Amino acid sequence: MSNQGNPGSAQAGTQGRVHREVDPAQQAVEAKLVENVVASFAGCPDPRLKEVMVALVEHLHAFIREVRLTEQEWRAAIDFLTNAGHITDDVRQEFILLSDTLGASMQTINVNNAAYKDATEATVFGPFFVEDSPRVELGGDVAFGAPGEPCWVEGTVTDTDGDPLAGARIEVWEADETGLYDVQYDGAKRSARGHLFSAEDGGYRFWALTPTPYPIPDDGPVGRMLAAVGRSPLRASHLHFMVGHENGRTLVTHIFPEGDPIGWNDSVFGVKESLIKRFERQPPGSPTPDGRVIEGTWSKVRFDIVLAPPGA
Amino acid sequence: MSNQGNPGSAQAGTQGRVHREVDPAQQAVEAKLVENVVASFAGCPDPRLKEVMVALVEHLHAFIREVRLTEQEWRAAIDFLTNAGHITDDVRQEFILLSDTLGASMQTINVNNAAYKDATEATVFGPFFVEDSPRVELGGDVAFGAPGEPCWVEGTVTDTDGDPLAGARIEVWEADETGLYDVQYDGAKRSARGHLFSAEDGGYRFWALTPTPYPIPDDGPVGRMLAAVGRSPLRASHLHFMVGHENGRTLVTHIFPEGDPIGWNDSVFGVKESLIKRFERQPPGSPTPDGRVIEGTWSKVRFDIVLAPPGA
Repeated sequence: MSNQGNPGSAQAGTQGRVHREVDPAQQAVEAKLVENVVASFAGCPDPRLKEVMVALVEHLHAFIREVRLTEQEWRAAIDFLTNAGHITDDVRQEFILLSDTLGASMQTINVNNAAYKDATEATVFGPFFVEDSPRVELGGDVAFGAPGEPCWVEGTVTDTDGDPLAGARIEVWEADETGLYDVQYDGAKRSARGHLFSAEDGGYRFWALTPTPYPIPDDGPVGRMLAAVGRSPLRASHLHFMVGHENGRTLVTHIFPEGDPIGWNDSVFGVKESLIKRFERQPPGSPTPDGRVIEGTWSKVRFDIVLAPPGA
Repeated sequence: MSNQGNPGSAQAGTQGRVHREVDPAQQAVEAKLVENVVASFAGCPDPRLKEVMVALVEHLHAFIREVRLTEQEWRAAIDFLTNAGHITDDVRQEFILLSDTLGASMQTINVNNAAYKDATEATVFGPFFVEDSPRVELGGDVAFGAPGEPCWVEGTVTDTDGDPLAGARIEVWEADETGLYDVQYDGAKRSARGHLFSAEDGGYRFWALTPTPYPIPDDGPVGRMLAAVGRSPLRASHLHFMVGHENGRTLVTHIFPEGDPIGWNDSVFGVKESLIKRFERQPPGSPTPDGRVIEGTWSKVRFDIVLAPPGA
């Protein structure tokens, strides 16, 4: 789509936009600037970079012209980005939180993970994945002492023809019952995360924690933005998965418990119908699939993972 | 203007966009997400903030969908913003440089400074203004020892009826002949900047330095972006002005020397025809307006400043 229409005279849209008339001479000044900025990328040696930058410039200018951005608002945007940059470090990523809360992360996931037959749907990656998670064997426990209700997770990894994918690398990570990921306590701590590999028949199983809702870190500029617009920082309860196999498209997703109190009001728009699973709570002391003795309640969930073909 | 058309099937535009077809089911998934994100701002108590956020979300999502942003490109954008945040401090403002080099600063100036009769045109503020510039008397020298060719600047400050504005506060600042502002040497240094007040008849005069071209700071992510797209970081030579008076709209502008080697290729799109002035170079030793003895060459320029009414 093109932004070369008439951004100055914003239509009163379905969102209740203010209708503003901008005089034609002023519109010409504004349009000429867009043209000059676009032209400055004419010599870009990389056609894809040029395409992305030109589209970025067109949308950025259309936004400024459409809302008639004030100089104070421009300054507030500069300050917002500066504060986001200053709070960001190796384990806190405010720009990912910003992208997530504006739905930009989810839209990028959508664009790059088009539905393919019955392949499992993708959702947001989030800011808390780390590369060096501990490996567990099939049936192992990724909690590593993190507080929370034990949860038995099992399923299969197959391709879209239903054939098992043996040796698929399954990375899982989640917040503990206090709402924090390991790295939020201490960058070096590793708990409530791990990886394992699917068996010859594609099956997998492990212990984790029953997911609970938690707020995204909201003591920074993104949290203040959410407060200002009246939005909750709470994420729907979820367990992260990243599943890779040489014969499949890498899947980044979550599963969400049915009946979650946050659910569709997820602060990062990650919930999809197909990813809502029944986590069945078990009575205290009831027998577990692997003979583990648990005094309190525990839960179990089944998640069968279907990978699209590579490059799908 | 609306972004609710069909961003998925980008038209082959005048900029040589790639034409991509996105299947209707996929488009529906993407459009539904935009709808959900927009709806999340429904409870925003501030109507203006709501308007700005909704337009931001619509353009951001339209951009992602139009270019079919890849996950690697999304990650590169996150890294770009992170690096920009980390290089930004009290005297280095990478986000302003980003806004400037994308023309967003100039567009914001345009939107907020519509032409009003013969009022002097505005241009970009830039990242190098500081609040505590030294005051000089009429005819004083704002160079404060910064290296460069002396330049005599004179003119008047009037309103759009031609009536003089006495006591207008005139802030001026510029790079020295090595291309650096004082704060780029040392945050505490103050040179090649100052402020003065117009006389009863609206007249003003001061010594400064003849402006020379210089690169914007290009050792950070913005400089790397300019290099990647084949653009020069050089700014057209200029002298910054900010002029305020209780009976006028505050003017932020530059003047640009006629015949400048960079001129219209200014890296921040700040040049306007009406702001190009003749800086007349004077022979070595020629008499100056105030009897100052200068061994080498010097220049002089006249800049008559017209302020629009407050709120124009």
